[in-house]
Amino acid sequence: MSSEATEERVLDAVRARRELVNEALDEDVPMSEPERLYEATRYLLQAGGKRLRPTVTLLTAEALADVEPLSEEYRSFPALDGSDLDVMAAAASIEVIQSFTLIHDDIMDDDDLRRGVPAVHKEYDTETAILAGDTLYAKAFELMTQTGADPQDGLEAVRLLATTCTKICEGQAFDIEFENRTEVLPDEYLDMIELKTAVLYGAAASTAAVLMGADDETVEALYRYGIDSGCAFQIQDDVLDLTVPSEKLGKQRGSDLVENKETLITLHARQQGVDVDGLVTADTVDGVTEDAVDAAVGELNDAGSIDYARDKAQELTDRAKSHLEVLPDNEARSLLEDIADYLITRGY
Amino acid sequence: MSSEATEERVLDAVRARRELVNEALDEDVPMSEPERLYEATRYLLQAGGKRLRPTVTLLTAEALADVEPLSEEYRSFPALDGSDLDVMAAAASIEVIQSFTLIHDDIMDDDDLRRGVPAVHKEYDTETAILAGDTLYAKAFELMTQTGADPQDGLEAVRLLATTCTKICEGQAFDIEFENRTEVLPDEYLDMIELKTAVLYGAAASTAAVLMGADDETVEALYRYGIDSGCAFQIQDDVLDLTVPSEKLGKQRGSDLVENKETLITLHARQQGVDVDGLVTADTVDGVTEDAVDAAVGELNDAGSIDYARDKAQELTDRAKSHLEVLPDNEARSLLEDIADYLITRGY
Repeated sequence: MSSEATEERVLDAVRARRELVNEALDEDVPMSEPERLYEATRYLLQAGGKRLRPTVTLLTAEALADVEPLSEEYRSFPALDGSDLDVMAAAASIEVIQSFTLIHDDIMDDDDLRRGVPAVHKEYDTETAILAGDTLYAKAFELMTQTGADPQDGLEAVRLLATTCTKICEGQAFDIEFENRTEVLPDEYLDMIELKTAVLYGAAASTAAVLMGADDETVEALYRYGIDSGCAFQIQDDVLDLTVPSEKLGKQRGSDLVENKETLITLHARQQGVDVDGLVTADTVDGVTEDAVDAAVGELNDAGSIDYARDKAQELTDRAKSHLEVLPDNEARSLLEDIADYLITRGY
Repeated sequence: MSSEATEERVLDAVRARRELVNEALDEDVPMSEPERLYEATRYLLQAGGKRLRPTVTLLTAEALADVEPLSEEYRSFPALDGSDLDVMAAAASIEVIQSFTLIHDDIMDDDDLRRGVPAVHKEYDTETAILAGDTLYAKAFELMTQTGADPQDGLEAVRLLATTCTKICEGQAFDIEFENRTEVLPDEYLDMIELKTAVLYGAAASTAAVLMGADDETVEALYRYGIDSGCAFQIQDDVLDLTVPSEKLGKQRGSDLVENKETLITLHARQQGVDVDGLVTADTVDGVTEDAVDAAVGELNDAGSIDYARDKAQELTDRAKSHLEVLPDNEARSLLEDIADYLITRGY
């Protein structure tokens, strides 16, 4: 299938679930007192987002149950033993964790904008943003206990969520540490993005299987699907920053280079002897020219670094899709394959 | 029993369990990578603390099981149906949550010292402190899934922990909000300290009952024991700040007044028409004299505000102890009664 057709199918699947996910988030993280805390807690959740992770959770449930997509109520969804569970609560829980990590990351990285609106610590203040993140953290765990799944499976899903959160913290800490290190190996970088970004995709992809009572092999395969496609997504992000025209990217192409952000591409290039620090001389994103970026991209191309990253993303995507073979061959599984492809073929 | 004898018995009970709790914390939150993150994560846990909350958890387990204190292994403790569970994991989980809240609170309040050592965000940095708190948060939930209790009970204990964390965030947000409000009613203050401080005592006191399969009435009574004694503890803290000599307090008596910190005492006094803001004119703790504090305390005494707080703490303590009547009459229950008394009779 062409990448445009894949993208269209994925975006349709996401759109069809987004409203349901948004309703669930609104219900499951309701306004309460103190008002300012709850406004801040709900602020980023309401600022939008594709809801890709909860969509993955819902699709894995549909693929496993082998039902027509959108044919069953997510709040009362058939587990493998015929009992009912609220798979939407699990999907919302994952999105709530994502939101908590963004709020705390934005404080740590002192980023001003998120999803086109001021970051929570800018719109409110740092104290409120720390607390809003902490509140979402608690809500996510509360939600994960409320799926009505078999208690043993419910407890296992909570444990998966907890170990996932620990790993996300480790990944963020490595990311901060790498900024102050003189040498980072490409494999260390891959380990970091697995922790920081991919494990939450892993949890999103496997939590429904855990809750529905799937066997360990199926759970593990879906977890690996999430990990591999999550890593591919992050690597592709770095490729797109160099290869997509600025107009389409919505920001200056090559901004990672100007900001001295290490990526798999620059780490590979360093190993090839490229003077990465000298690639772009501009100090600010506004001061760089398209010609300068072209020249830098040319050098990285010559070193094989962009192809290296692109190949890595493709390899991970292929592996991600192969993990889906544990699932029945159905429409939902096919959409999950499309999502893996979409993560590395999407425009920005 | 005299308050000195009660204090000695409580401190003996705490000391007898502290080493076991410390070992559990060391095992359950082990060093890992990135090293700096885990050092920061373990730093406050290792800085000491009485371990009062985990002691309460362990004592409630012993009271419920009706066993001689310290006669059963906490890692393999008899539930009410005869099966085994790791009640120490639950006790450690509560202490880990306490540690996480202290780390994040110290960032929010910009406090420099905690337990006699620099706060985590001072010893490391704010980014690391946010992440260390977030890591402890995850570890606490992981621990609560690892008690080996009946899964239904395990899931209920996780839910209790999650709703407790939400309330702690709400309490901290109210505390921050109250600092900027012109009028706070005594009842609003009591609601705030229940959320900010007492609910974690409530969780500490009831989580073993949940995990051991106690009935709802018992769980609720133990929760109320924790809430009432936790509130009494916090109110007494404010009384002690005015009534214990500076040498014994380890800081200037009346420092809350100098720092314009509202307490149940000042809020009551305001209602009685006392000019609380004019009670102490010194701007800094170093600039205040004992005579000035004496005069202020005299005014608060005349308004009945100190007695009001003291009576409230005593009333809550009596109520806390009455909730323990659901437990078998044994040595562990007697120690829990002593702890409630100790919380309002302790020196500083």
